[in-house]
Amino acid sequence: MKPLETIKIGIIGAGRIGMLHARNIATQSEGTELCSISDVFPEAAQRAADLCGVKDTTTDYSRILENPEISAVLICSSTDTHAQIIEDAAQAGKNIFCEKPIDLDLQRVKRVIGIVNKSGVKFQVGFNRRFDPNFAKLKEHLSNDKIGHTHILKITSRDPAPPPLDYVKRSGGLFVDMTIHDFDMARFLSGSEVNEVYAAGDAVIDRRVGDLGDIDTALVMLKFENGVLSTIDNSRQAVYGYDQRVEVFGEKGMLQAQNTLSDTVEVSTAQTVEKAKPHYFFLERYQDSYVAEIRAFIKAIHDDTEPVVGGNDGLMSLQIGLAAQKSLAENRPVRLNEVTG
Amino acid sequence: MKPLETIKIGIIGAGRIGMLHARNIATQSEGTELCSISDVFPEAAQRAADLCGVKDTTTDYSRILENPEISAVLICSSTDTHAQIIEDAAQAGKNIFCEKPIDLDLQRVKRVIGIVNKSGVKFQVGFNRRFDPNFAKLKEHLSNDKIGHTHILKITSRDPAPPPLDYVKRSGGLFVDMTIHDFDMARFLSGSEVNEVYAAGDAVIDRRVGDLGDIDTALVMLKFENGVLSTIDNSRQAVYGYDQRVEVFGEKGMLQAQNTLSDTVEVSTAQTVEKAKPHYFFLERYQDSYVAEIRAFIKAIHDDTEPVVGGNDGLMSLQIGLAAQKSLAENRPVRLNEVTG
Amino acid sequence: MKPLETIKIGIIGAGRIGMLHARNIATQSEGTELCSISDVFPEAAQRAADLCGVKDTTTDYSRILENPEISAVLICSSTDTHAQIIEDAAQAGKNIFCEKPIDLDLQRVKRVIGIVNKSGVKFQVGFNRRFDPNFAKLKEHLSNDKIGHTHILKITSRDPAPPPLDYVKRSGGLFVDMTIHDFDMARFLSGSEVNEVYAAGDAVIDRRVGDLGDIDTALVMLKFENGVLSTIDNSRQAVYGYDQRVEVFGEKGMLQAQNTLSDTVEVSTAQTVEKAKPHYFFLERYQDSYVAEIRAFIKAIHDDTEPVVGGNDGLMSLQIGLAAQKSLAENRPVRLNEVTG
Amino acid sequence: MKPLETIKIGIIGAGRIGMLHARNIATQSEGTELCSISDVFPEAAQRAADLCGVKDTTTDYSRILENPEISAVLICSSTDTHAQIIEDAAQAGKNIFCEKPIDLDLQRVKRVIGIVNKSGVKFQVGFNRRFDPNFAKLKEHLSNDKIGHTHILKITSRDPAPPPLDYVKRSGGLFVDMTIHDFDMARFLSGSEVNEVYAAGDAVIDRRVGDLGDIDTALVMLKFENGVLSTIDNSRQAVYGYDQRVEVFGEKGMLQAQNTLSDTVEVSTAQTVEKAKPHYFFLERYQDSYVAEIRAFIKAIHDDTEPVVGGNDGLMSLQIGLAAQKSLAENRPVRLNEVTG
Repeated sequence: MKPLETIKIGIIGAGRIGMLHARNIATQSEGTELCSISDVFPEAAQRAADLCGVKDTTTDYSRILENPEISAVLICSSTDTHAQIIEDAAQAGKNIFCEKPIDLDLQRVKRVIGIVNKSGVKFQVGFNRRFDPNFAKLKEHLSNDKIGHTHILKITSRDPAPPPLDYVKRSGGLFVDMTIHDFDMARFLSGSEVNEVYAAGDAVIDRRVGDLGDIDTALVMLKFENGVLSTIDNSRQAVYGYDQRVEVFGEKGMLQAQNTLSDTVEVSTAQTVEKAKPHYFFLERYQDSYVAEIRAFIKAIHDDTEPVVGGNDGLMSLQIGLAAQKSLAENRPVRLNEVTG
Repeated sequence: MKPLETIKIGIIGAGRIGMLHARNIATQSEGTELCSISDVFPEAAQRAADLCGVKDTTTDYSRILENPEISAVLICSSTDTHAQIIEDAAQAGKNIFCEKPIDLDLQRVKRVIGIVNKSGVKFQVGFNRRFDPNFAKLKEHLSNDKIGHTHILKITSRDPAPPPLDYVKRSGGLFVDMTIHDFDMARFLSGSEVNEVYAAGDAVIDRRVGDLGDIDTALVMLKFENGVLSTIDNSRQAVYGYDQRVEVFGEKGMLQAQNTLSDTVEVSTAQTVEKAKPHYFFLERYQDSYVAEIRAFIKAIHDDTEPVVGGNDGLMSLQIGLAAQKSLAENRPVRLNEVTG
Repeated sequence: MKPLETIKIGIIGAGRIGMLHARNIATQSEGTELCSISDVFPEAAQRAADLCGVKDTTTDYSRILENPEISAVLICSSTDTHAQIIEDAAQAGKNIFCEKPIDLDLQRVKRVIGIVNKSGVKFQVGFNRRFDPNFAKLKEHLSNDKIGHTHILKITSRDPAPPPLDYVKRSGGLFVDMTIHDFDMARFLSGSEVNEVYAAGDAVIDRRVGDLGDIDTALVMLKFENGVLSTIDNSRQAVYGYDQRVEVFGEKGMLQAQNTLSDTVEVSTAQTVEKAKPHYFFLERYQDSYVAEIRAFIKAIHDDTEPVVGGNDGLMSLQIGLAAQKSLAENRPVRLNEVTG
Repeated sequence: MKPLETIKIGIIGAGRIGMLHARNIATQSEGTELCSISDVFPEAAQRAADLCGVKDTTTDYSRILENPEISAVLICSSTDTHAQIIEDAAQAGKNIFCEKPIDLDLQRVKRVIGIVNKSGVKFQVGFNRRFDPNFAKLKEHLSNDKIGHTHILKITSRDPAPPPLDYVKRSGGLFVDMTIHDFDMARFLSGSEVNEVYAAGDAVIDRRVGDLGDIDTALVMLKFENGVLSTIDNSRQAVYGYDQRVEVFGEKGMLQAQNTLSDTVEVSTAQTVEKAKPHYFFLERYQDSYVAEIRAFIKAIHDDTEPVVGGNDGLMSLQIGLAAQKSLAENRPVRLNEVTG
């Protein structure tokens, strides 16, 4: 295998997720070189640069876009800046990996996708869970027709602890902030598009979330074009840890992806038999998926193929999220085409 | 412990479930004596009597009701005969255990319950799953406040193979024939009453079921008065065996009752790691629960207490089933009080 | 299927295990009738008779042997009486089921077997674990060549709590009282005979057991004629419950029979994830096996075939136990033929 | 946390395990810099250097020892060179991490340890399994007195496939090549030293292994000074994958470290219920442990503390291995002090 040409990368946004990608690129993505990191807070950029042995930092992301050596950028800044940076990066001819969501406004997302498509750059959206080895294995079984046609698809997705209220305020609401990952997973696993959404939910963990007009517990039912019926259940607070499971039931059997546990030790005593709790949160649970999604992005650039998760995936999941919001507000099933942004 | 007075029992209906109860009473219900078995087919009654060492058989259930020695009857005949026999038995002063459903007509059920209540006899409905050791243990944990307030309640209930089309025709439809058990379980575990039902479903296993106006695959969402959100998923055909699981998620944790397996053996080979499949169907899966529900019925008679599953439980589950039918037909959430029979 | 001729049975010894068999015969062994119960304590015989609806009781077991209607006896009396009763029963032409061990003296056991063989009656020894559905399923996999030749066989066998010291005194020692079941299981699963035994052990749970010359914790290594290497580990006190597992490792894979649990409920909280403990002791763990072994005995009588566990099995397991005692005493591997009684 | 001074490292031996350490240091060991790689095959050194971005390679390890910037070396060369290189490195004042075994000759090992001790450099032996998160968690439970005094310790250690016969020839035999890891684990978990060893085994997978005087299947029993009884079972060929489990049984309960699986997906079909196989071999199973052991080594240098696994651990495990060989040859329990090299 001859070594591939090194892809030079800039990271825009050095918060928690930007830092995560920076480290993964520095240590686990062969064929890449992390060249520059930008953040509106210079010390954030500097800290990431120090940790990853990167020389160049900036507070102005356009300096990264102007750097002719850099062929790909990772957009890890705050959600409200995504759309603009994507457009700028596309116009600068950079291949783009962007964290979800692209934007909270459906029309804006469509415009962004239009610009990206015209530019011809690669565009991948950060639905990392598709790259989780367990969900990827489950999808592989589906692709191999292990259980035939899918009849019922169930996704459990619960965070270990609620985010700060300040975060909730700016999040766009549970369905577009948290459930959006599950909507993408449901599309990924069903291999189809949603026709109709029915959503229920409430703020039962923290009443102040309700005062902000949001919910922290939800049940969503999805009907897919190919007949698959799906439920998603969400909670902002699973006290036993990050609960991320999928069950697919079909004509020839069932597939279940269980939680990953922090260790394999079982303790039997006079009182009880205990095993380890699930991994606490996404950094532990999904660490392999973050590495894998960047590798897939790099591979798409190298091979000049379409990224496996693109702009349309970002768009569709947002649209389902908005339909779920409408369904909750009006307590009725909402067809996807009722939500046009 | 002084021995209790023996309760003499007659069984009306000697089909599969009548036979099951006959054997359990003959072999595993101390303090009871099975005295008489009736069936419209004399050879069915005789076969059961032979197997259980019972002398008396009849094709006319009123002979059982006229027998002054018999203090309790088990009604295991076909559904369309339940209401009349219950009324007759109540008027004859017999304590009554009746298989579900009481009747498919809500008004009829209410009338039956009225007559039973006036008569003062014990009346237990055959929601055996409440007596399953696993679900009973889960309920015990809930009662002990192991997970605090319930937020989400998920029931999986799938049969191994569809019933004959002839059965489907007379069944009243999936929601009142099959899901009715799950509605009762949801009420039992939530400790509350349903406000609203939203149901989806289709005939995806056998199109002929759809031609009969029924479905074989369903997702139901229930909203309870106390705020619990619940889903039930049903299939008439889980090829891997009888799939009967419950998951309750709450403020302080999660309870899960998993399937019982036919054995504990794991086989690891170069190809795979296999474990045993779930018990094939209800006779194996719920055999303990059938014994336990009859014991509870006998105990209620002995102790002169209310049976733990009574006429109102039969009524409420039917009402939820009818609301689910209406929801499916009209594709909208239906409030329980919209269905008044 | 035409009904078989009813086999009339007498039980000799109405202690815990005699009572267990009495109830199983009364309730779950079709084609049998329990006619008489004897015990040296008349009230023990009476209590069992009352519970099982048996008319005849006696303190003198010879009355059972003289009863021409009775064709089979279950010997559940104390170990020191087994040999004599077996001989008497054989001479009376009764088919014999006897609890293990036949006797603690090897020569005595051989004499008993000689007499039984000459008499031509059926003779089954109570190694009930062979009939446990899980171990039976594991054996079935072995017979089906699921893992090829066995290389390593591991048996874990631990009681939940030590017996009274008085029991220990009369037990013959851990190896012939407790491990004898595991020796039989090892023979059953290996399909071969033991060549050599090496045993280690100590009294680490209760020093008084050591003062009596016995041990409460043991490791035994067995070498079989067919090359299988086996370990057995025993403890008189597994505080988490009855621990009964088997692992067979071979050229094409591994078979493991895990513990049976008291229920299937998992509890996840902020502190821990708990599942149910193993069944507490043999009455719960092996209840199916007790029913099955009696059914097998009855079937052998009906079909006039050899019982699947006979006198030789009782003899061989005792011999291994005595070899283990010798090995422990002399701290060296002992060949089975060094122990001739 | 202020950044620590960077430790400069040289790797001696760039085979499979040397390459593994090189990559881990390059990517996952903060506070280290990999400066030089030596191998007797220049292309092996070069390949590792290219992959890890290292400038300096050599075929002569003394060039690494002479480099004043390098303060620590990892010895990953073939076993027969370990002792000499350790002595040279110690005399050069380098901190030493050496793969197991130190040497196959007990006297030689003692001499090496003497020289290392006199030199005052850090010396860690590569018993990586102590650093496996699962076994480390199990040890933590033991240290927290979760199960009280240990009575029985069982280690299962089976490779997925036998090594080449050429490797077997030079390996020193199963007990010092493979079981040595398990001996170290048993010492680690028991917290005590072995008094006596009894070993059984044979070449049942490949007769040619027997022709070479070695075995491929083994059962070992260990008696520890503190009374712990232990068994180890080994196989060179577990066709279902790398089988690495530990069970510790004690006065207050049991701890079990199960295998890690390649994914969490369960597949239920009409035929079977399957889960993923164990990780295939040590690179997958123990990858975290390799990272952790090097971090521990670096930390010991930084903090100027004793490495948690030192020369004496290498010595003791070898001695147990030699005692096991003697026990197998003479078919009798061998006391550790019978083996003095």
